[in-house]
Amino acid sequence: MILKNKKKLKNIIYINFLIKIYVKILFEKNGYMNLKNKKINNQKEVDKLRKQKFKTGRVTVGKLEKILYKTFNVLDHGFVRLIDYMGDDSSIVQAARVSYGKGTKKINQDKNLINYLLSHRHSTPFEMNEIKLHVKLPIFVARQWIRHRTANVNEYSARYSILEREFYLPELKNIQTQSDINNQGRGTGLKTSKAKLKRELIKKHSHNSFDNYSYLLNENEEGEIIDLQEEGIARELARMTLPLNSYTQWYWKIDLHNLMHFLSLRFDPHAQLEIRVYADIIMDIMKKWVPLTYDAFIMHRMNGFSLSSTGVEFVKSLIKNKKFDKTSISKRELNEITKRFDLA
Amino acid sequence: MILKNKKKLKNIIYINFLIKIYVKILFEKNGYMNLKNKKINNQKEVDKLRKQKFKTGRVTVGKLEKILYKTFNVLDHGFVRLIDYMGDDSSIVQAARVSYGKGTKKINQDKNLINYLLSHRHSTPFEMNEIKLHVKLPIFVARQWIRHRTANVNEYSARYSILEREFYLPELKNIQTQSDINNQGRGTGLKTSKAKLKRELIKKHSHNSFDNYSYLLNENEEGEIIDLQEEGIARELARMTLPLNSYTQWYWKIDLHNLMHFLSLRFDPHAQLEIRVYADIIMDIMKKWVPLTYDAFIMHRMNGFSLSSTGVEFVKSLIKNKKFDKTSISKRELNEITKRFDLA
Amino acid sequence: MILKNKKKLKNIIYINFLIKIYVKILFEKNGYMNLKNKKINNQKEVDKLRKQKFKTGRVTVGKLEKILYKTFNVLDHGFVRLIDYMGDDSSIVQAARVSYGKGTKKINQDKNLINYLLSHRHSTPFEMNEIKLHVKLPIFVARQWIRHRTANVNEYSARYSILEREFYLPELKNIQTQSDINNQGRGTGLKTSKAKLKRELIKKHSHNSFDNYSYLLNENEEGEIIDLQEEGIARELARMTLPLNSYTQWYWKIDLHNLMHFLSLRFDPHAQLEIRVYADIIMDIMKKWVPLTYDAFIMHRMNGFSLSSTGVEFVKSLIKNKKFDKTSISKRELNEITKRFDLA
Amino acid sequence: MILKNKKKLKNIIYINFLIKIYVKILFEKNGYMNLKNKKINNQKEVDKLRKQKFKTGRVTVGKLEKILYKTFNVLDHGFVRLIDYMGDDSSIVQAARVSYGKGTKKINQDKNLINYLLSHRHSTPFEMNEIKLHVKLPIFVARQWIRHRTANVNEYSARYSILEREFYLPELKNIQTQSDINNQGRGTGLKTSKAKLKRELIKKHSHNSFDNYSYLLNENEEGEIIDLQEEGIARELARMTLPLNSYTQWYWKIDLHNLMHFLSLRFDPHAQLEIRVYADIIMDIMKKWVPLTYDAFIMHRMNGFSLSSTGVEFVKSLIKNKKFDKTSISKRELNEITKRFDLA
Repeated sequence: MILKNKKKLKNIIYINFLIKIYVKILFEKNGYMNLKNKKINNQKEVDKLRKQKFKTGRVTVGKLEKILYKTFNVLDHGFVRLIDYMGDDSSIVQAARVSYGKGTKKINQDKNLINYLLSHRHSTPFEMNEIKLHVKLPIFVARQWIRHRTANVNEYSARYSILEREFYLPELKNIQTQSDINNQGRGTGLKTSKAKLKRELIKKHSHNSFDNYSYLLNENEEGEIIDLQEEGIARELARMTLPLNSYTQWYWKIDLHNLMHFLSLRFDPHAQLEIRVYADIIMDIMKKWVPLTYDAFIMHRMNGFSLSSTGVEFVKSLIKNKKFDKTSISKRELNEITKRFDLA
Repeated sequence: MILKNKKKLKNIIYINFLIKIYVKILFEKNGYMNLKNKKINNQKEVDKLRKQKFKTGRVTVGKLEKILYKTFNVLDHGFVRLIDYMGDDSSIVQAARVSYGKGTKKINQDKNLINYLLSHRHSTPFEMNEIKLHVKLPIFVARQWIRHRTANVNEYSARYSILEREFYLPELKNIQTQSDINNQGRGTGLKTSKAKLKRELIKKHSHNSFDNYSYLLNENEEGEIIDLQEEGIARELARMTLPLNSYTQWYWKIDLHNLMHFLSLRFDPHAQLEIRVYADIIMDIMKKWVPLTYDAFIMHRMNGFSLSSTGVEFVKSLIKNKKFDKTSISKRELNEITKRFDLA
Repeated sequence: MILKNKKKLKNIIYINFLIKIYVKILFEKNGYMNLKNKKINNQKEVDKLRKQKFKTGRVTVGKLEKILYKTFNVLDHGFVRLIDYMGDDSSIVQAARVSYGKGTKKINQDKNLINYLLSHRHSTPFEMNEIKLHVKLPIFVARQWIRHRTANVNEYSARYSILEREFYLPELKNIQTQSDINNQGRGTGLKTSKAKLKRELIKKHSHNSFDNYSYLLNENEEGEIIDLQEEGIARELARMTLPLNSYTQWYWKIDLHNLMHFLSLRFDPHAQLEIRVYADIIMDIMKKWVPLTYDAFIMHRMNGFSLSSTGVEFVKSLIKNKKFDKTSISKRELNEITKRFDLA
Repeated sequence: MILKNKKKLKNIIYINFLIKIYVKILFEKNGYMNLKNKKINNQKEVDKLRKQKFKTGRVTVGKLEKILYKTFNVLDHGFVRLIDYMGDDSSIVQAARVSYGKGTKKINQDKNLINYLLSHRHSTPFEMNEIKLHVKLPIFVARQWIRHRTANVNEYSARYSILEREFYLPELKNIQTQSDINNQGRGTGLKTSKAKLKRELIKKHSHNSFDNYSYLLNENEEGEIIDLQEEGIARELARMTLPLNSYTQWYWKIDLHNLMHFLSLRFDPHAQLEIRVYADIIMDIMKKWVPLTYDAFIMHRMNGFSLSSTGVEFVKSLIKNKKFDKTSISKRELNEITKRFDLA
């Protein structure tokens, strides 16, 4: 990759120059600005689906039926769309009752049972419910998301198909510095003028990348050949030049137990904003789907708090007004407890 | 566990004698013969469910709706009941099309696409469909079944609840010898008179086991205390005496890809008869659910045939009428090919 | 299963009588008492393995090498034996550092990093370690154990092989009543004389079951035919008569993350005693294997404590000496907090 | 994203111009050509590891010990490195024998048993072996790879750390057209001069992308601030501009059964060249690790052949020289059979 001598370097500079001119001419004429209305839009197909109604004997959730196939927009080009679901709160109870049989007389109210199951990490009844979503999301978000291995995924393949000219561009307020205290988080926002500059760079870069992608394919988004004299290269190769903020899409199916695990990690202040906004939409869908489980999830998991054995001793000393050697507790936990119990 | 001296032995024989008398008296009075109509019967509840109909926008399969919550009897006391399902043949195609996007113009008929996906082991689109069953089955069958780890299960717990007096007793024709050629299979049937004797032994043993279970619990199937002067032991302990042909039940949810894997192993002549009869029912349900996938599954998996590289060479020699050194191929494969291609 | 008329009943009583006589004669002659020294003992083979030493460049844990292949006895006939392992504490750190790269300078001590990972549920680095055990256990314990689906298992097959005459018989002190407060737990111990009676019943029942098993197989534990005039039935059928306290065995491989999940459920006062004793041994093995992770696991998981959002508010009111409406918190959590923070 | 009026357009063009100048000046001075020797090189650390030897009682494979921690180069900057392993061929046999116990006397040779297990898809014994690799690979390859969900992964995080200036650039011979017959494959190579042009474009684009990444971070690969007057943006955001041919790395652990599944899909002519070269290296490692399993895998899986039920009928007609209605078989299978059995 590193150049070995000046001659070679000169040749390359010359070649680069030619490419630049070529790509420039190409896209100034047929450029991306004209493409605005051409992107594949399956909204019509979706609208048609939304009108269909069938009779079923299966457990049905009214609030979910209302949003079936509806497009919830996320970020600038992304979306979440509910495709299918299986079960409701009563299905969890029903599955649990198979397990506990006649022995469960005491815990006989659905709400209590769900709270009990969730707080004691009895996960199998929650696995009995499934949800299927169609999601459009930037590739760098998809790479985080896919790490949750206990879901089923069918992703749009850039080996088969040409991607669209769509890129995630952060809103100005979300263009923030690296956090000083958290190795993986964001700090403060940039001045608007500075943020604009960064955003423009990302935008320009994204379109340049797509221009290069199209040039390599020798094919535009409509599948038309750009230059009849030239040969494009394979899609599986050309995609290499696409940036990580390109959009991809997939069908994603997961059971409720694993969905809650996903949400507990991704609907969290430490998660990257760009995945949190998806988790946010999915939280709303979950609330409509299984309201009792949602409440229990908020109470025990999202807004719950875990203490280590040292943490327990510290809190005990606070309650009993006794001395406590603070060097025995980690700074991290001390901070978390201070914050959570308003001790400051 | 082994007795150390004669004195101890005598005591034990005496104790055993007392227990025997005690248990005998107990069950001759309150015995199992009176219990015939008392077993928990949720058929009414099920019949009620079968009448309910809701409106849904979800993909719906008419043939499955007709058998929703219906009880398919299996073995003497077992059953399979369809509780819920997600998706149909079109859902598989839809998921696949997300993957292949615009690139799939050529494989555009659903049937062809499903055949292609199945024969090329593209499993993810089949994972997009789910099915949920309620199954009642003998414990030794449940132990085989549970080895398929890619399903969700909620089983009736004998720690919480008392099991019912129900045991699998094989039909006379299914009481067979150990196979001479297959270490794990069955051979020929026994003479009817002999089979009857075996069956009676199993039956008597099962009821004796349940009598002991009840005695240990000091509680009958109705949850009534047997002897007010005595203390029963914990359910989690008493169940130890139950035999492997006792019935258990569970909710079982699995995606279509893993269901086909389950069926390819359990709907197979080498599978134990007692699990095959369940696979048989589930095959019928699958046929109603996803007829195109079912046909492809039969053609490529169930009735397909895999050759090793040596097998390929052997078959090639047969086609081309050339010599082949049969010592190079394993006896097992030679037999399988001979059988499958009617070469004998 | 239920008899329809008296005639049939009489026939059956007669048949039962014949069977009883037959089985009695059979086992009084060749009875189980003579079998004490015949059970398969692979201790020699194991001892040989224990002496072998090889050179390796892999991460090696001295304390585990010392117990490799050693038999840890559990219950009356069960055991746990360490067969293989992969990784140590440093492997977890190494895997985590791949993830965090240059960014992790601050959390640079192994112990702190491991504590951080564990308390924040970053599970993937712990998945990088594996352990393989050989376990012998009663079938009713195996049925609980197998519900942890994220492990690899090879179990002794009673379709292929004949089981040994070995049954779990609880110690007298462990023969306890059903708990009054917990639907699935045990209460108090029985009087010794009563416990003896129960134990004898279980013992006698177990041996009767095995006698019936052998009779059905027409083969003893040595694989010898019992009655040359008779035909036995297939092993996969005969095993039906074995009780749930029969012993089985398996190879079990699991990664450290999932092992901790297993232990957090099974090394717990609510777990059944008979599985807890296995978890106990495995806890010791884990301590030798990954001491830093073990300490973090004890501190954050085993001895940690989780509060719901209501629980947090209650504890806050205790610290700040404010009023709290106790009806807003569940009785269960109130009890747990009272107990854990010594509030009574 | 689409511009609405000319004024806005002019502003943007002006901003773009400024950025371009800025970035140009920046990198002409501090440009990427000087960075050649600075990339993080953990070869020393690795060499040190390679010299260490420990004593172990665990199963050890001589041929793997020789390549432990060795760097196998793949593509231009990628590698595969063996970090750890568990088990060998004998471990598979040992696990299988637990299952089959005394019943397996007949299949008593290791090789035969392994062939039997593999050809009959008895997968659990192969799950008893594990392998851990350190892999460096382009992101678009990583995205295919991660779809195999049954492995453990720790990936270098671009939220925590800054990536290196390393990109995959295909060799000239591998710059090929889209396949005419396969929607996802490659066709013929380009003329060298044309291929050079494409390659230069990819190269230039990659470095421009990295320049933009550095500019957004305001930090170079050494972690030094580029412009003290400016603020960089968070790493999790800046990475958006990186192209899919950027390199990432991970620790990857998988059991032998799932490894074979991975290899059967990725060491296949239909797999993308850039992942196949990794599978190629891993095939060699597997051969050293478990030679008997490797042979069986080649014979039954890689070089085996599966016929559908129609395919069986067709082959039967060929053997028996009978007529066959070729419309009943799919074109795809007809082609595959013709090719595999040299029928053309």
